[in-house]
Amino acid sequence: MGLIVQKFGGSSVANTQKLELVTEHIIYEVEKGNKVVVVVSAQGKTTDRLISEEEEITKTPLKREHDVLVSTGEQITIAKLSMLLNEKNYRAVSLTGWQIPIITNSEFSNSRIKYIHNETVEEYLNAGNIVIVAGFQGVDENGNITTFGRGGSDTTAVALAASLKAERCDIYTDVDGVFTTDPRITDKAKKIKTISYEEMLELSSMGAKVLHNRCVEIGKKYNVPIYVKSTFEKISDGTLITNSGNLEDLVINGVTKDDYISRITIVGIENKIGRSYELFKLLAKHNINVDVIVQSFGEHIIKDIAFTVKMNDLDKTLKILDENKEMLNAKEILHCENLSKVSIIGVGIANKPGVAADMFEALYENNINMHMITTSEIKITVLVNSNEADIAVKAIHQKFFDN
Amino acid sequence: MGLIVQKFGGSSVANTQKLELVTEHIIYEVEKGNKVVVVVSAQGKTTDRLISEEEEITKTPLKREHDVLVSTGEQITIAKLSMLLNEKNYRAVSLTGWQIPIITNSEFSNSRIKYIHNETVEEYLNAGNIVIVAGFQGVDENGNITTFGRGGSDTTAVALAASLKAERCDIYTDVDGVFTTDPRITDKAKKIKTISYEEMLELSSMGAKVLHNRCVEIGKKYNVPIYVKSTFEKISDGTLITNSGNLEDLVINGVTKDDYISRITIVGIENKIGRSYELFKLLAKHNINVDVIVQSFGEHIIKDIAFTVKMNDLDKTLKILDENKEMLNAKEILHCENLSKVSIIGVGIANKPGVAADMFEALYENNINMHMITTSEIKITVLVNSNEADIAVKAIHQKFFDN
Repeated sequence: MGLIVQKFGGSSVANTQKLELVTEHIIYEVEKGNKVVVVVSAQGKTTDRLISEEEEITKTPLKREHDVLVSTGEQITIAKLSMLLNEKNYRAVSLTGWQIPIITNSEFSNSRIKYIHNETVEEYLNAGNIVIVAGFQGVDENGNITTFGRGGSDTTAVALAASLKAERCDIYTDVDGVFTTDPRITDKAKKIKTISYEEMLELSSMGAKVLHNRCVEIGKKYNVPIYVKSTFEKISDGTLITNSGNLEDLVINGVTKDDYISRITIVGIENKIGRSYELFKLLAKHNINVDVIVQSFGEHIIKDIAFTVKMNDLDKTLKILDENKEMLNAKEILHCENLSKVSIIGVGIANKPGVAADMFEALYENNINMHMITTSEIKITVLVNSNEADIAVKAIHQKFFDN
Repeated sequence: MGLIVQKFGGSSVANTQKLELVTEHIIYEVEKGNKVVVVVSAQGKTTDRLISEEEEITKTPLKREHDVLVSTGEQITIAKLSMLLNEKNYRAVSLTGWQIPIITNSEFSNSRIKYIHNETVEEYLNAGNIVIVAGFQGVDENGNITTFGRGGSDTTAVALAASLKAERCDIYTDVDGVFTTDPRITDKAKKIKTISYEEMLELSSMGAKVLHNRCVEIGKKYNVPIYVKSTFEKISDGTLITNSGNLEDLVINGVTKDDYISRITIVGIENKIGRSYELFKLLAKHNINVDVIVQSFGEHIIKDIAFTVKMNDLDKTLKILDENKEMLNAKEILHCENLSKVSIIGVGIANKPGVAADMFEALYENNINMHMITTSEIKITVLVNSNEADIAVKAIHQKFFDN
């Protein structure tokens, strides 16, 4: 008999029929004698609807008020799920972020958890209740409602599991685990049985939408085993994310793709200390999210810097660079659109020579040009034309998994 | 420069266009140099929608969870209204019931306010904010969300005005004040400029839907002047409800009608101490809401008791009486359906002879039969057939106001 935290996302709780499925997973653990804490998101398109109503009022809402607005979505779900469990004669009680409370900093819409008070949850659990918690939300030390930004409910679930010292955290979603690549790109995609936190971090930052990085980071820090499972299958063993790493000793654990990327190259910028800093500070000031950065050292006194931004930031970025071209004092500013990042991820990369060569070979065999290459200890990323990205993913996946 | 509490109901905040109108009333008071606290309801049909979604899950929701669910409606409104004011460069901040906090007892869905902490509201006001408060909701001493039941947002507004010692409480609604009778019945209906709390209590308990009794009671107890005004008119002087009573010295202040009434007469019940008590305790136990009660003393040892119940409680009431006829030991149980209560209300009634006679004359002139008569210091009520009720209201109204 242990304590399990379960998390169900927006599509898993979208309507009453789906809430019925959710109760089956909850009741399954309760009947095994476990204490269960359930974290839920807003139902289906609720948050989108609230945001579109907000946009009727203002495009630049006060973030404090935005959080007051959108946090109602999860509050609706917890009330409904608790009612449904009680209707089935399972005692359940709902708790919002402030009722627990989950104390965060005051950065509205993107707040971070400072600490969680366990007492209220534990009292309700010890009194025999299933505790239903609103994901994505907390309260700051001044009593303001805060929300966590993207992936917020996953974060709530893993943070609660860590704070309550739960046996594990089960993240229920609409796929049956983490796959070696997107199953919509190739039907050769395989479910990963076990993956390390580090690999999962790379996978989720690279376009695998299953889990958000923040929750994996918390899992890693507090050593919370995280299971990714399917809401829509009765028995789902899913994927276990844990400290013990890649138990199957695969070289790579996944191939990911991220579309709508553009590359900007600043050619012949002065090679002076602080120059890169000024450039990226300038972009950060305008909220341009720069992703991959590659800096080449050409001659001694000038260099080239290339970086990627999302396509919808491209025009704004070019405009900012143009307005600051005197400061930058560059020879030329080039850009390239409609690119995709394709990456392979695995703890085996660092220790196994030839992984990069294998990847590049797969692309070469398919005549796919690489616009940029970056590597880390557990990841190799290339930029390719978007219209060739799916072929690239398939070819790389075949190279590493079909043998 | 004073402190004003304004309240806007569901139809006044139904959409963004209507919220724009609401901001005009708020800004008008702010520009006059007033501190403003605004209480709002859920937008339009939001609460109805939440309840119909709830009914998909259960017809008998846990009341605690029901309150968690429906309280989101007002939370959505406060966030939107605060955003809209900030968009117009008026500093505003939203507060839910628990953020203030408004402390209530733990009777979910029908809770009563125990006390209100003024500090948070006052701090925000002193810092130059308009404070936007979610009506209808509070929090109990254990941190559970509670709601107030019908008329809850009016109650929040008047209670806040009392607690903050506001200059007055303006209740904005879709009518321009309190009228001498329902303007849909006769176009002769006149707006009442000033009315006493007592008269307003009688009016609102008698079918005038403008204000709920609870908020009038609080206004009376703490001497809060309440203005009922129209949201949809720029300058609306509305109706003032105050302690100073009927300043215009009208004999009566209003004519009201309440439909769907049935009368039950228990004929020849034993005239014994405790017999009436047993009867009405029996009905209360079954949640039958008994309204007017008339008891006649016939012979020494038996009496007749007549009382009214809502039409939709009639069958249930007759069944209960039938099941307990041995205990009641009555000669006969009669009932009469499709009745309406028609009442006149005014502090002048007690001091002015002939008011009842004038009322009955108006009915007599129109051949309208009275099934029951009850009177109080400030009210005379008669029961008439529902199909004659509108004629009765018109005739009585003409008798007292058209001269």
